[in-house]
Amino acid sequence: MKIVVIGAGAMGSIYGGHLSLHNDVTLIDTNSALVERLNKEGLILEENGTDNVYHPHAQTSAAGLEKADLIILFTKSLYSRSALESARGIIGPDTYLMTLQNGAGHEYLLMEFTDKDHIIIGTTEDNGALISPGHIHHGGKGVTNIGLLNGGDRAVLENVKECFNPCGFDVRIQSNIQHLIWDKLMTNASLSVLTAILQCDMSYISRNESARALCTLLIKETVAVANAMGLEFSFEDVRAKVMATSENNKGGYTSIMMDIKNGRRTEVDTISGAVVRKADELDVAVPNMKMAVALVHALEGKSN
Amino acid sequence: MKIVVIGAGAMGSIYGGHLSLHNDVTLIDTNSALVERLNKEGLILEENGTDNVYHPHAQTSAAGLEKADLIILFTKSLYSRSALESARGIIGPDTYLMTLQNGAGHEYLLMEFTDKDHIIIGTTEDNGALISPGHIHHGGKGVTNIGLLNGGDRAVLENVKECFNPCGFDVRIQSNIQHLIWDKLMTNASLSVLTAILQCDMSYISRNESARALCTLLIKETVAVANAMGLEFSFEDVRAKVMATSENNKGGYTSIMMDIKNGRRTEVDTISGAVVRKADELDVAVPNMKMAVALVHALEGKSN
Repeated sequence: MKIVVIGAGAMGSIYGGHLSLHNDVTLIDTNSALVERLNKEGLILEENGTDNVYHPHAQTSAAGLEKADLIILFTKSLYSRSALESARGIIGPDTYLMTLQNGAGHEYLLMEFTDKDHIIIGTTEDNGALISPGHIHHGGKGVTNIGLLNGGDRAVLENVKECFNPCGFDVRIQSNIQHLIWDKLMTNASLSVLTAILQCDMSYISRNESARALCTLLIKETVAVANAMGLEFSFEDVRAKVMATSENNKGGYTSIMMDIKNGRRTEVDTISGAVVRKADELDVAVPNMKMAVALVHALEGKSN
Repeated sequence: MKIVVIGAGAMGSIYGGHLSLHNDVTLIDTNSALVERLNKEGLILEENGTDNVYHPHAQTSAAGLEKADLIILFTKSLYSRSALESARGIIGPDTYLMTLQNGAGHEYLLMEFTDKDHIIIGTTEDNGALISPGHIHHGGKGVTNIGLLNGGDRAVLENVKECFNPCGFDVRIQSNIQHLIWDKLMTNASLSVLTAILQCDMSYISRNESARALCTLLIKETVAVANAMGLEFSFEDVRAKVMATSENNKGGYTSIMMDIKNGRRTEVDTISGAVVRKADELDVAVPNMKMAVALVHALEGKSN
């Protein structure tokens, strides 16, 4: 498979590196020093205490590449649009665009670059952290859930699975992929976004009465939107799961909390913002979620 | 007039000190070291660059005092209830209870200690800051607006005015005192509470697009509640005034913002919480204000 992975951060490197074992992989990143190093010295993934070196081909742009079979977007969602724009030349009528990015609603952007039938969405349980550019700690391995946005040709998912699994992934084809995406979103749009606003660790949300009440309101709104989409979530089950995640993560900081702390822009628009977008489409009232999104944006602005 | 002022913070000291010039004033504060110092060395108000010494009588409780003609509550609103409970013995059938405390809705508490006809509510434009206990910087002088909660006997207000004005106050009797109280609340329940949540200076609210939008939502809700009370506010006028306050206070920090920053409890329940209480009474939807109150309480909890 001719695969292009856009974004050589932690997740792009993990997928780009592993997939290069049995596929024709190009990793695109705008950081030219990094691209040079990847081509010369390879990509290092620290896995189970060992530094493994992978050799995907790297480029700073899509220039000179043929149309891809599969393009996987692994940029921060903030940079998705510009990344796809620069990759327009390698998106052909048979190219599939795939996103495993955190949050939801990435398909709206992908649909500006191809038709609905060529979009694969999903989630990943793998996780990683940048030690330095080109040197990534591959922390945990897990399932990669994928599905077609629009039903469409299921054979392509089987093909993806066959290309991915021999490279060390555990791909599962899901007919109800949005349910899995929203399941992950439940925690991020409630617990995570609140830790960003309150600048606290994950456990604080379940420990503090007011924070817990706010988190519960955000969960309630997210469940209402998901259920209006036809996904079936039980508010009580989601609440119990989110609270357990809070309780089990004393001293744990979410990436969106750290983004605010360090004066960076966040991915709130594809997390809580994805809930708001769907809510407006389906006419569900989400006043708390709207306020949460605005507060995160207001906090982002403080670093200007 | 036999006046008891409860709370020897900045505002209680300013009123207690000045009123002692021509009235029988007792200043009550639970800080016994402070009370001892006030009785021995007097109360020092730094006014226009000069340290003026005043000699109100000070006590740590109401023990041994006769029924008062007027009791003025100048504690932080958090301590209002316990202060009034300890003063129960000096509240007689002819005693008036007066609050010029920041925020709104203090009358609900006062009504637990006397009937509606004996409650005076109002606002003060004087301001002060504690240099050290018993030594207060009297920053600005202004109008003291007063009114009876329940209409009632206007003669008592004339009496208050006659006792106050020779002591350096500018008392104005207002028939629509709630309008003035809510006018002051408009800024505190929107701009101030947002600076606490975002931990920013006052000017940031008008400078940042998301913060400005949030502030506008809070103003809209406060105006809706005030107008449901029968007070007549123009949303556009209030918004313009609040934004001007923001723009004119670059580098200015609200007391509620500083309370959060320094890990103290805030007066949010008598500021934004007063809006929520009235909203619930009058069945006005204030989702943003409710979330603001909960966020401030969640932020307060971080210091636990």
